[in-house]
Amino acid sequence: MQENDRSEEGFTVTPWEVEGNIDYQKLIEDFGTDSLDDELLERIEEVVGETHFMLRRSIFYSHRDFDWILDNYEEGQKFALYTGRGPSGHTHVGHLMPWIFAKWMQDQFGVDLYFQLTDDEKFLFNFDSTLDDTHSYALENAKDIIALGFDPEKTHIFIDTDFIHELYPLALKVGKRLNFSNVKAVFGFDNSTNVGSIFYTAIQSAPCFLPSELEGEKVPVLIPCGIDQDPHFRLTRDVAETIGYLKPALLHNKLAPSLDGTGKMSASQPKTTIFTTDKPEDVDEKINEAFTGGRISASEQREKGGDPDICSVQNYRYYIFESDDEKVEDIADRCRAGDILCGPCKQLLKDNINKFLSKHQRKREKAEDRFNEFLVKDCEENFK
Amino acid sequence: MQENDRSEEGFTVTPWEVEGNIDYQKLIEDFGTDSLDDELLERIEEVVGETHFMLRRSIFYSHRDFDWILDNYEEGQKFALYTGRGPSGHTHVGHLMPWIFAKWMQDQFGVDLYFQLTDDEKFLFNFDSTLDDTHSYALENAKDIIALGFDPEKTHIFIDTDFIHELYPLALKVGKRLNFSNVKAVFGFDNSTNVGSIFYTAIQSAPCFLPSELEGEKVPVLIPCGIDQDPHFRLTRDVAETIGYLKPALLHNKLAPSLDGTGKMSASQPKTTIFTTDKPEDVDEKINEAFTGGRISASEQREKGGDPDICSVQNYRYYIFESDDEKVEDIADRCRAGDILCGPCKQLLKDNINKFLSKHQRKREKAEDRFNEFLVKDCEENFK
Repeated sequence: MQENDRSEEGFTVTPWEVEGNIDYQKLIEDFGTDSLDDELLERIEEVVGETHFMLRRSIFYSHRDFDWILDNYEEGQKFALYTGRGPSGHTHVGHLMPWIFAKWMQDQFGVDLYFQLTDDEKFLFNFDSTLDDTHSYALENAKDIIALGFDPEKTHIFIDTDFIHELYPLALKVGKRLNFSNVKAVFGFDNSTNVGSIFYTAIQSAPCFLPSELEGEKVPVLIPCGIDQDPHFRLTRDVAETIGYLKPALLHNKLAPSLDGTGKMSASQPKTTIFTTDKPEDVDEKINEAFTGGRISASEQREKGGDPDICSVQNYRYYIFESDDEKVEDIADRCRAGDILCGPCKQLLKDNINKFLSKHQRKREKAEDRFNEFLVKDCEENFK
Repeated sequence: MQENDRSEEGFTVTPWEVEGNIDYQKLIEDFGTDSLDDELLERIEEVVGETHFMLRRSIFYSHRDFDWILDNYEEGQKFALYTGRGPSGHTHVGHLMPWIFAKWMQDQFGVDLYFQLTDDEKFLFNFDSTLDDTHSYALENAKDIIALGFDPEKTHIFIDTDFIHELYPLALKVGKRLNFSNVKAVFGFDNSTNVGSIFYTAIQSAPCFLPSELEGEKVPVLIPCGIDQDPHFRLTRDVAETIGYLKPALLHNKLAPSLDGTGKMSASQPKTTIFTTDKPEDVDEKINEAFTGGRISASEQREKGGDPDICSVQNYRYYIFESDDEKVEDIADRCRAGDILCGPCKQLLKDNINKFLSKHQRKREKAEDRFNEFLVKDCEENFK
């Protein structure tokens, strides 16, 4: 399986590079995953009694073996959730998307969540980063995770370099079974790739098997994550059974859009990205500058209507900041009809974002005091 | 720099394969190291007031920057010693060679010794090994190290998987600066090499920089080791200064010969290898079977003399079991003159080995009780 190649398809999706207009359906074919179809969506709703807007809206849209997770769950076998974050900078609201969903999953299924912060990865893949940088960002990111309200009894956040004593033996087992051909084919590595990066997939694989090690029996693991992370776990799945574990299952989300309408939200483009620490005035300014589907004049827009399908303001609402489907549809209808102009429409989004961030930031400020409830580390009494 | 290639030279020397009749002078050229010449030998003797038979006999015969270590030492700058062992099996007497020398160095220079037991390496490079196997062997090997009488205040033995929390950040710094081309050129890796093995040199490099981390200032490190380990440290030296440390210096020893006279002593050939746990009767049997430079009959040997230069019994004496140069020479002379036959000559060696092993085994039996004096581990109070 080759990595997704922009030169042929007009977009690139790897764990370290997401560029262009992503054809998500094409990614399902390229990566060999399955669509999260209506039957499976109905089944989730049956099992837990409700659904989530990210499922209804196909933001989580692809999976590997999620049906098997549900089969097992219905037979009384609990699974564990595992997700992560590469701490290359401050958290933006796009990062929160899969975390918010992971929290919903934890609440619905009552399961443990393992949250990996890969300071080693970001050090290895970003030439200019130091380990101090990435470790500091990991702690900053951990505050956002905690602020989202995960269950401290069931949520185990770890930074790789702080938890390597636990991860390394598992990573060695994976690393012995993956060769350079495997990682070259999946990631497009070449002779100039550093040996830390070549080994790294083994570190990201390790938490897939940690619940089994902790429980002393094979525990199914479900990974909600961006589709860009699938290549790592495709490799993990290839070796899992050989080394005595279960293949991890996955639920893939689409990547949050940027405010300029050109691609994925990215911390390297701060003007088109909303960070969890942004003040209301920052948010207002960024949303004011956002790319919309509006017309060149108010009068033309009143007459001909706008295009919510290409509008990043509507996208933000759709992906994260409005869980009520009717409200999302209603605004889109009013936009198309010319009944709402971009100014008031942006104001609705600003209000939602600022309301969310005000609450998030209050919790975030207290999060550092709660590190000991959530962070697991080598040399400490974890998993009480 | 290509790995040493048997097809051209009739011998192979890599950290994982030593075969054929090694041309040690050729290795100096291939690896680009320096000869440990008379001037340097005299200088060591001047500095510490004595010499060691492994230096006099050119068993330690090659180096990198050892002169720089002495320069610094004479200016009052202490260095640290670092050596190691790949725990693929029980310790044989050939393994003891560089350890005995390291102890002499520690005693002479009064410096700290860091001793790495690479259970991860042996797991990664030996397909059939488990981590439990290599970790168990590491503990067995540690008993032999302790039995040699190192200073517990200044000797820090660690098993990689038990000490990875300390090693990993250093390994990441090295691993970021080595690419696949580098390790491919030095070790002959190819697309089928597992990603753990590709990364591994970074783990073996980490202890070169540990003394600097512990002291909070740049500490010169000297590595006495088999010449087969040089390729790892050649890579380490290439990146050391870039990541803010000093290049490690090296002293290389030739590899202990086997008892059948065909190559290096190897744990995989137990009948021609003496283990530290062998009983006197095992030793007697193996020496009785050893390849010698004797003639086909006693009468012919008395008449024409034997050839000590090709004799593995004499080699054992020369490399390890007789520190008195005159005695070694005397036996060689008597052999050549036909004055001593193989039986009595073997008996002298057996006596020396069994005397050594009897004392070693007594100390070895008590070594496990002393693990806490010597072994450093993650999550424990080390380096008091």
